[in-house]
Amino acid sequence: MGGDHGPVVTVPASLDALALEQDLRIVLVGKIDAINAHLRDGSSRFGDRITLREASQVVTMDEKPQDALRKKKDSSMRVAIDLVKAGEADACVSAGNTGALMATGRFVLKTVEGIDRPAIISRIRSRHGHTQMLDLGANSECTAEHLFQFAVMGSVVASDMHGIANPRVGILNIGEEETKGDSVVQEAARLLGASKLNYIGFVEGNDIFSGEVDVVVTDGFTGNVALKSMEGLVNMLVGALKTEYTRNPLRYLGALASWPVIRALRREFDPRNYNGASMVGLTGVVIKSHGSADVVSFGNAIRVALIEAQKGVPTQISDLLKAQLQ
Amino acid sequence: MGGDHGPVVTVPASLDALALEQDLRIVLVGKIDAINAHLRDGSSRFGDRITLREASQVVTMDEKPQDALRKKKDSSMRVAIDLVKAGEADACVSAGNTGALMATGRFVLKTVEGIDRPAIISRIRSRHGHTQMLDLGANSECTAEHLFQFAVMGSVVASDMHGIANPRVGILNIGEEETKGDSVVQEAARLLGASKLNYIGFVEGNDIFSGEVDVVVTDGFTGNVALKSMEGLVNMLVGALKTEYTRNPLRYLGALASWPVIRALRREFDPRNYNGASMVGLTGVVIKSHGSADVVSFGNAIRVALIEAQKGVPTQISDLLKAQLQ
Repeated sequence: MGGDHGPVVTVPASLDALALEQDLRIVLVGKIDAINAHLRDGSSRFGDRITLREASQVVTMDEKPQDALRKKKDSSMRVAIDLVKAGEADACVSAGNTGALMATGRFVLKTVEGIDRPAIISRIRSRHGHTQMLDLGANSECTAEHLFQFAVMGSVVASDMHGIANPRVGILNIGEEETKGDSVVQEAARLLGASKLNYIGFVEGNDIFSGEVDVVVTDGFTGNVALKSMEGLVNMLVGALKTEYTRNPLRYLGALASWPVIRALRREFDPRNYNGASMVGLTGVVIKSHGSADVVSFGNAIRVALIEAQKGVPTQISDLLKAQLQ
Repeated sequence: MGGDHGPVVTVPASLDALALEQDLRIVLVGKIDAINAHLRDGSSRFGDRITLREASQVVTMDEKPQDALRKKKDSSMRVAIDLVKAGEADACVSAGNTGALMATGRFVLKTVEGIDRPAIISRIRSRHGHTQMLDLGANSECTAEHLFQFAVMGSVVASDMHGIANPRVGILNIGEEETKGDSVVQEAARLLGASKLNYIGFVEGNDIFSGEVDVVVTDGFTGNVALKSMEGLVNMLVGALKTEYTRNPLRYLGALASWPVIRALRREFDPRNYNGASMVGLTGVVIKSHGSADVVSFGNAIRVALIEAQKGVPTQISDLLKAQLQ
């Protein structure tokens, strides 16, 4: 039910995902009428691979997390996470209110033993592949131990989900010298240096894209600002490109002649391919889609949920955490 | 003497600036031989508008600020700032070690009364113009009072240097709701809300480019990470564009047909036009050029210094600060 568009996007995206992924089964949670309006021939096409589950309430995008938790116990978000808790679903995907989703996830699912705070992780396109970055906004203020736990979780996602052996972990800082930054990053560096993770030291903002680090660890304030700054910059550049290419007919011809380049770049950098941030650290898989996601974009979030459930990320996090203590 | 290139860049850039700006006079500070090697006919061309000043030492790019301050009392950086202190120069421009330049600036020039910490400010291209953003890396940890002072300094730069009447000030946060963020941004919001500045509330990373805020205030850690993330992203995108356009002869033709667009975008977004970050809050004008600046880029930093000196930014900051207390 969530996001800027609701079932108009989430239901068709689910049907597309079911057609693509033979191992996938989907429970659509929300107001049955609203879901049915977009289900078309879904039920007959996919049989018992698709089921509907009534939830009478909807968490709005601007609702306070604590209000959602207290007053909306039959929201689509809450019911979906309850299904994960009960073992009736292996993952929850939502385009809804981020704060409410995180609060509900923590309340219902709790964190993996040894993880104090869940974090939001997403992959970011880099020069030679991808960088996993966390936390992207769940925790404004973090301790060194939190950053250490983020590093463990990021390493699991990079290795298990993206097949990177021994992922290189860096702590985001304002310089690469050991003396830079506040006491939190200093202490986190000490903890990581003494761990079994592949810690490579401090990295700077530009290193997110350098391809020389696989997991970038930072607090949720810095991570969120950096992520949104990048989004804003890309939107501005794409807007400027459109303006320039449509200024006159000759410019149109230029766009036409550049079509293979534009298409290649769009394929490579399309932000829709990066939709689906994971709330790692919970005992179950919870994936947050961008609120403005379209069908393609939301489909990618479903794919992230599928892989994370198949790989058993929460268990892997618990295992890697224990391995640090041995 | 500073930066990745030294006098190869700084001296020709100075000559170009003197040719462009009739009101400008330049004192080149450093090793006389190194300067003379690139001075060509500068002395005869510009007469007493150009002078040379010997400084026997050079602060290296990786030197610790405290070491530079203690051991390099005859560095080009120190001598240049001493000239500002003595009133023999109206501004100092350096492409050298940022930390050392800031420490030397603070030690020699001190801060304007009422300003606890100098900050690094730069303009950033936005959708409809420019946004002033600070702090970009001088202060990792900031109090609410520091953020308030940054807002005053940013307002002066936006109005006096860039002609924006009653500039809109926003505090960078991870959400626009009043309840978001830690106690520092909360308290800073309260201070700014009660001030005479045009405070518009919390803004997010993407708002830096939205054109809906003129001054974005944040701590030096977040600001530096955001700035470097943007730089890294742009470098990656420009690299990908080059790769795609040079993949085969047909693609070359596409680039040729798109030349007006590429040229327009380059003119509009050329990072060299944005070189020259100001260390505001000091009693004198100190401008930091990117270490990797070329002649065009360093020339822009000189232009920023010229305007800031002409506008008397340090005095304006002091005045606006006093106006807040009345």
